[in-house]
Amino acid sequence: MSLKDIQKDVDEWTSQFTPQYWPPHEILARLMEEVGELAREINHLYGTKKKKPTEETREMAAEIADIIFTLCCLANSQKIDLDRAWQEMMTKYRERDAQRYAKK
Amino acid sequence: MSLKDIQKDVDEWTSQFTPQYWPPHEILARLMEEVGELAREINHLYGTKKKKPTEETREMAAEIADIIFTLCCLANSQKIDLDRAWQEMMTKYRERDAQRYAKK
Amino acid sequence: MSLKDIQKDVDEWTSQFTPQYWPPHEILARLMEEVGELAREINHLYGTKKKKPTEETREMAAEIADIIFTLCCLANSQKIDLDRAWQEMMTKYRERDAQRYAKK
Amino acid sequence: MSLKDIQKDVDEWTSQFTPQYWPPHEILARLMEEVGELAREINHLYGTKKKKPTEETREMAAEIADIIFTLCCLANSQKIDLDRAWQEMMTKYRERDAQRYAKK
Repeated sequence: MSLKDIQKDVDEWTSQFTPQYWPPHEILARLMEEVGELAREINHLYGTKKKKPTEETREMAAEIADIIFTLCCLANSQKIDLDRAWQEMMTKYRERDAQRYAKK
Repeated sequence: MSLKDIQKDVDEWTSQFTPQYWPPHEILARLMEEVGELAREINHLYGTKKKKPTEETREMAAEIADIIFTLCCLANSQKIDLDRAWQEMMTKYRERDAQRYAKK
Repeated sequence: MSLKDIQKDVDEWTSQFTPQYWPPHEILARLMEEVGELAREINHLYGTKKKKPTEETREMAAEIADIIFTLCCLANSQKIDLDRAWQEMMTKYRERDAQRYAKK
Repeated sequence: MSLKDIQKDVDEWTSQFTPQYWPPHEILARLMEEVGELAREINHLYGTKKKKPTEETREMAAEIADIIFTLCCLANSQKIDLDRAWQEMMTKYRERDAQRYAKK
């Protein structure tokens, strides 16, 4: 499994820009913008005033990819290894679980 | 001071729609969409890749008004009195302060 | 109606801090933090895994007030007049409406 | 490269819950909550009133992983293939680029 490859994709792509990455607060603002676009899409697909049939998730998929891209920009700009962060999170989840069962 | 009048503005305006208010989660999604638009505007005004001079805050003002409108929809739909919530918040702030000075 | 009084409340309260207002991107990050808290509250009240009865909207009211406070910080720091922004928004809505009926 | 493995991690982990996935709007609310936590962390690391030295990005890494987890829940619940969405996004970016150079 490799978030590393995804981070590398982003690093190659952004290497053409100067600066390659914005400061963290600006990347965050961009992230908020994209989460907002996902939110709109979710209202269009699943809200009271639906504008699209629920199967048309293609645009939602694209919005999720955009968000992951932006998260990779943030991670890359701060030298964060997402594979490691992912493993640590999953390990924490599993340990919490193991403990829960042990207590039964 | 009166957030009440603002809530009333919103209530009158939305009374033409059916349903008058969406369920809370859908209003929240709408809120996120608008917070995202404000975020974009802030990047355009104050970000590394500025697209507008900093004085042009008119659109930012409009985004803030949109967010307040959406918050009023949420409050109205749940019979929340924002004047009261505001007073309670300010009272809490002031008491915390009073205590802080007392401790000096 | 007066968002002006609310902005004044915020200005008086924050006048004790240095700097009185953070830069826009930092206020925006704070706004996101508070919108996130509202989101959690909405899941607790109206989500699949409810933790609170729906009538307990007091905390939700407090979160909305917090968000409005943060929006006022942003507005104050950029000399934005929210009463005016509100009036302009409502005027735009009403004109759009008037036109819609005229077209019938 | 494989977002597929990450989606599978999430699917295995969540398979112990009923329902396995919340409705989209509730996952979105959760996403907003986590973006809010990332925002707080960014203010603590890079804001005017820093509370942590900038090198301590471990918690930020954890917040990013949480957000990706939540995005995978949303994708899984709607049968979205994130590898494909990622490829489509990168292809779109590269084509746009190719065109840009061609126009020179």
